[in-house]
Order: sequence, then structure tokens, then C-alpha cells
Amino acid sequence: MTSAADPTHRSTSITREPGRPPVLAVIGGGQLARMMAQAAVGLDVPIRLLAEADGVSAAQVLPDHLVGDYRDLGTLRRVTEGCAVVTFDHEHVPTQHLQALADDGVACRPGPGALVHAQDKAVMRTRLAELGVPCPRNAVVVDAADVGRFATEVGGFPVVLKTTRGGYDGKGVWVVGTESECGPAFEAAVQAGVEILAEEKVAFRRELSALVARSPSGQVAAYPVVESVQKDGVCWEVTAPAPDLDEALALEAQRVAMTVAAELDVTGILAVELFETDDGRILVNELAMRPHNTGHWSIDGAVTGQFENHLRAVLDLPLGSPEARQPWTVMVNILGGSHGHISDDLYAGYPHVLARDPRLKVHLYGKSVKPGRKVGHVTAYGDDLDEVRERARHAAAWFRGDLGEESH
Amino acid sequence: MTSAADPTHRSTSITREPGRPPVLAVIGGGQLARMMAQAAVGLDVPIRLLAEADGVSAAQVLPDHLVGDYRDLGTLRRVTEGCAVVTFDHEHVPTQHLQALADDGVACRPGPGALVHAQDKAVMRTRLAELGVPCPRNAVVVDAADVGRFATEVGGFPVVLKTTRGGYDGKGVWVVGTESECGPAFEAAVQAGVEILAEEKVAFRRELSALVARSPSGQVAAYPVVESVQKDGVCWEVTAPAPDLDEALALEAQRVAMTVAAELDVTGILAVELFETDDGRILVNELAMRPHNTGHWSIDGAVTGQFENHLRAVLDLPLGSPEARQPWTVMVNILGGSHGHISDDLYAGYPHVLARDPRLKVHLYGKSVKPGRKVGHVTAYGDDLDEVRERARHAAAWFRGDLGEESH
Repeated sequence: MTSAADPTHRSTSITREPGRPPVLAVIGGGQLARMMAQAAVGLDVPIRLLAEADGVSAAQVLPDHLVGDYRDLGTLRRVTEGCAVVTFDHEHVPTQHLQALADDGVACRPGPGALVHAQDKAVMRTRLAELGVPCPRNAVVVDAADVGRFATEVGGFPVVLKTTRGGYDGKGVWVVGTESECGPAFEAAVQAGVEILAEEKVAFRRELSALVARSPSGQVAAYPVVESVQKDGVCWEVTAPAPDLDEALALEAQRVAMTVAAELDVTGILAVELFETDDGRILVNELAMRPHNTGHWSIDGAVTGQFENHLRAVLDLPLGSPEARQPWTVMVNILGGSHGHISDDLYAGYPHVLARDPRLKVHLYGKSVKPGRKVGHVTAYGDDLDEVRERARHAAAWFRGDLGEESH
Repeated sequence: MTSAADPTHRSTSITREPGRPPVLAVIGGGQLARMMAQAAVGLDVPIRLLAEADGVSAAQVLPDHLVGDYRDLGTLRRVTEGCAVVTFDHEHVPTQHLQALADDGVACRPGPGALVHAQDKAVMRTRLAELGVPCPRNAVVVDAADVGRFATEVGGFPVVLKTTRGGYDGKGVWVVGTESECGPAFEAAVQAGVEILAEEKVAFRRELSALVARSPSGQVAAYPVVESVQKDGVCWEVTAPAPDLDEALALEAQRVAMTVAAELDVTGILAVELFETDDGRILVNELAMRPHNTGHWSIDGAVTGQFENHLRAVLDLPLGSPEARQPWTVMVNILGGSHGHISDDLYAGYPHVLARDPRLKVHLYGKSVKPGRKVGHVTAYGDDLDEVRERARHAAAWFRGDLGEESH
């Protein structure tokens, strides 16, 4: 089940000073690195961070950080010097730099051979097709006429256009209804020096996510399959496990995630975002090779949170149990609101939110609030899904400063 | 129920920069501050640390720290400048310095008027007697003859001698069987410039601990009463809740802790260590006004861990639920062993410990291993006490490098 393509972990032994834990380099100082840092406190794994700028989310909680550009190989070499392993807050480090680090003897986890599938959607689609993993029909397209031909093949417009590289959180994605609407996508692609991938617009019932942690030794831990709700291309709410999900389909989703992790030789967390189609199939939408928003529920809701298992996986330590600790867990993102007196001062939300729900778990990321920006999340868990969902939704709405229909 | 003695929180409002969370000063860089730091990541509460030395446990995970002497008022003023609140990793900051900080307008939580009861055992005993809280019989003694008279009053030797200030983890405590054995205690007291408190040696069934969090507003959260096992005066193992504890006695223990917290105006965590006597009473042994070893189980075992509730309490935020998440939680300390190949390299313990028990939670403190030193703890939880206890004991024994009767 393992590929021989990735030379970065020929050996699973970890270089470290005698009697000291290995130092882990983390590239990128966002909230994912911040939550890795929180998990690293308990495991006593020292982290050296490469931050984009002073004072970013993870740099606030990691003494050993330097500020620099992850697109610069010299900077990457400086931050990884003396580190046994390097892992990532995001997937934007250039493949050739990862290869150079691997050649230097730093274990990149995930390695460049795996990560390219999370960086380049065309490469990902080609590889998943080879593996027989079900995906929406897709093709790389070069102009509007090409999109038109693709639309005809898949039953007509609308179709989805995506830049092959660089998109995230709804950026780099267009839904087009006619050939004449394709201009912005191709202009963006030319500007960014990337290609455009066309995909059929899938009629789906809902979105699911299957998360696994995989270690270089090949151990895999599969989290319960969750339901995720997106708004404007951004993760809004996650329910674990996905309510009323057919058991066979849940197993298939986990099997797909495990297959992709093993065949692409992923190390660390792999998130497989899926469509559950109207006709009861699952299709792979996106891959992410890092802790993922659809796994944040696990910090409070699972025996082992995704951030701890990511650390354990990239250090090739035995993985922790991914099982849920209670019947239902709901995570709702706190997005920067565009209105409301609290939206620009999250701390001011505490007196109400914490007093209303003593069982709520709050995670704020230390980021300044901008409309639509992910600045935190809340998690509620318990036995009754409706009650759990109401608690999480209310708290997130309060922090957003959104006193609309979801807060009461 | 509240005392007017402590002027440090006349107002419960917290000074902070507009739109920013308040900065919390923490004095002392041990594992308690380290675990506060871990909890502060999620709440997004910036911590400024005063560390005893470079690289101590909490300084490893807190970017904003300075190194200095907590007995120096100038240093304390430097670290608390601009901070709304100061709290503590230990109880050794001189009372007069705390009073000076309070006069400067920094909210000391707990305040000097409360903390003196955790610093001075004679003051504590006097106050608890006034409150009608049951304690072992006790008296301040000035020489061996005085100890002899006290022994006669309480039914004879042996009696327990304690320095009134400065003792912890079994240090500053002597059990004496005759007047002639009192020398070392009085010598130590003279050297340290403190007094000696004599206490009856209580015939007890076991030791219990009642932990509460209390906020300046007067909100209190009471954790389940736990059983603690000490070895050589050091906490060894904690079981939550205390098995087979009479329900009325458990309630009385919680009531005692709530009374002490309110009457002494404690803010933050208060741990009340208790004897459950052979004849079925509870007597207060010690008070601690900070997160406590007998509360470490709550990080993984309770809805809200003691470190998060300590932060919420000292910031006067609403407290989180202290309830247990499952029937049984067992915490075992990892103490530095004096033998075994793993005892000086905790990381080397991971492959076995984590693979054997995927549900185990490990907390290492980043401290160098010395015989008897607390360098970490493990927590197991579940439905079956025997199984949970075996898992936690085995893991701690493995980390200790102790392959004796407790590891198998």
C-alpha cells in the first residue's frame, strides 16, 4: 500500500540530542501552528516556527520563532537547521524547496511527493483517478471554448472552475453558467501563472470530511466522518459524527481517506473533503495535508485531538485514539463579523458566552478581526444533537456580533 | 460570606487595551505556569512570566518572559507593569511585596490577605479554627519541652512538626517520636527564621483533596473530591472521584473548601488537602492557593481543567463546569527515577507507552530528570477503575524506568 516515490523518510528514526526531545520545525504561523504548539506543550516537543510576520497567531505562543519568507530556500534552511522534522501550517511551500530540504536530510512530513497532491489540483485529480478514487468529472481547460466542450461532456453548465494551485477558502474558485462568464478565472490563472481545472458541479446532499493521521511507519488513525457546512466557500460548522450517515458510506469514506494517505505516502493529518451526492455516493472534493478546520472538533471532542496526532504522526510516535468522547460534538467557526459591537473585540464576548454555557470550549486565535476572517472557533459536546448545536451556534453568533436568527 | 480584608479587588473590572485581551502576569516558571500557558492559548490570554532562570519549564512555552528574583520588589514591578492581574506558580512571593503591588493597582489573585494562609501554617490554623473548620489539633511550639507538653495534650507521641513557612513536598515536615528527636526541626526553623507548628499525628484512612475555583465576583466551581496517595510527602497518584467516599462526607469536603475560599477571599484555584480519619471525619491538612497536583486529572478528565478555571477565575470571567467527563480518572505523577535506562530520557518512553495505550494522556514538563523530581504526569480515564488505574500506573512506571511490581 505504500509508494516508493518519496525519499524523505527512508528511515523512521528521528535525529535528536541525547536525552532531549527532537525539535520540530513548523512552517507558517497561523492558527493551525498555534494549535500544534498547544498540543506540543503536553508532549514536550520543542517547536521552531517560521512566521510570516511579527506577532502572527502562532508566534504569540512560541518563543523559538523567526520571521521570514517560506518561499526563500535560505530561510527554510535556517529555520530547519538542527531540526529532525519539518511540518507545515499551510501547503504553499514550493515543491522544489521541500525537495532541497529533503536532500539536506530534513524529514519533510508530509514530503514533497505527497504534498504536491494538496498543492496542485490537476496532479491530485490525475492521481486519484489512477487509484480509482471517486471524484467529480474534471479536465484541465485552456480557454472558454474548452470549458464549453467540457460542459457538454458533463451534461451542461454550470461547471466549476478552479485554479490548479494557490486557492483556499473559496478563493480561486468560480461557478460559471456560460462560456462568457469564464473570463475572470482565466485572467486570474494567467496572472498567477497556473492552469484552470474544470469540474462538474455535483448535485450534493451535503459535504463530509474524512480525517486520518498517518505515520511514516504506516500506522493510521481514522477519525469519525463528519458533516461540514460551508458558507461562501469557508467552513462554517462541523458536526461529529455526520448525522444519519449510512454506515457503509461512512466506512467507504474512511477507506478512501486511508487509501489516499497510504498511496500518496502522506505523513501527518490528511483531510479528505467529500461530497455526499443526491444519489448516495461520495466523491472527493479536496485534499488537505495538515490539520484541518473539519478536525477542530477533535481537540475537545475526541480522545486525541488532530493537533496532537499530527505531532505524533510526523514524529513517528504511536498514534492516539481518534474516537469521540461523547455522542455528538459540534464546532462552529468564529468569523469576523461586519457589524455588531462585539465583532471587533472578542474578549468582550466572554462574560455572556461563558456564563450562558459553562460546558462550552472556546478557542480564539489571537488574530485581529476582519470581516469573514477565521478568528476562532467554539465547540460544544453532549448527548443531544439539537441542544449541542444550539449551544455552539449561539456562542459563535455572539462572538461574531451577529444577533440574527441564529442567536436567541 | 466574603471578607472585607483584601483591598486588591475592590472592582472586578479588568484593565485592558481597547479591543485587546488583558495581559496576565504569572510569577514563577514551573510546571503549573506551563500548564496555565497551555490553557491560555485557547482563551487567547497573553501571559507575561517571571521565571527563576533561563529555560525553566514555563519559559520554554511563553515568549513573553523575563528572568529574575521573585523576592525583589523592583523585579515584580517590572514584570507586572501594564498587567491587569498577577497570579502565581507558587506561594513564596513575600506578603509585603504583594501588598505593594496591590497598592500600585495591580490585582493580585489570590491577594496577600488570602495568600498568607497558604504561606504561613500558623496563621492558617488560627483562621480555620475561627471559622470552625475541622483541623488536627495544633500549637506553635518553641522548644522540645514545649513539644513534649503538646504531645501529652494530644495523647502522646508521635507528633508532626512543620516549619510555619517555606515547606512543600515533604520538606519542612518531621514526624518525631520523642522530645529528643526535635532538634533538626528547631535547627531548620532557626536557620530559616520561621517558627515550628506542632500537630497531632492523625490516624487517617486516606488523603482527600477538595478543589474549588473562585472568582473575585464570588462565583465558585467545586471539583469532585479526589483521593490522593502520597509517597515520602510527594503526591504520587490521584483518583477522581475518591472511590467509595461517603456522599455526605464528599459534600462536607466541598463545603469546607467553599467556606475557606469565600471567608479567606481566595481568587483562583484553592486546593484543600484533607485527612479522612479512621473514625470517618475529615480534617484539613494543608491549603494551596494555586492549581494543584491533585487537580491535574481535570485537564483531560473534567469539562474544564483546573488551569483554564484558574485563568478564568483570576480574570473574573465566568467559570467553566468542573464536572468529570467519565466515571473514573486516574493521574499518576512521573517522578525522576534513580535507576533504569529510560529514567533520564523521558522521550524514549513514548514508543512503548503510547503504543500500549492509545487513550493515555501524557504531560511532560520539560524539566531535567532528577531522582524524586516531578517531571510529568499521565492520565487515564474510563468506565472501569481497575483498568484505568493499571493503565496510568504502568505508563508512569515505564517513564520512571521502574520495572518493579507496578509495571507488567
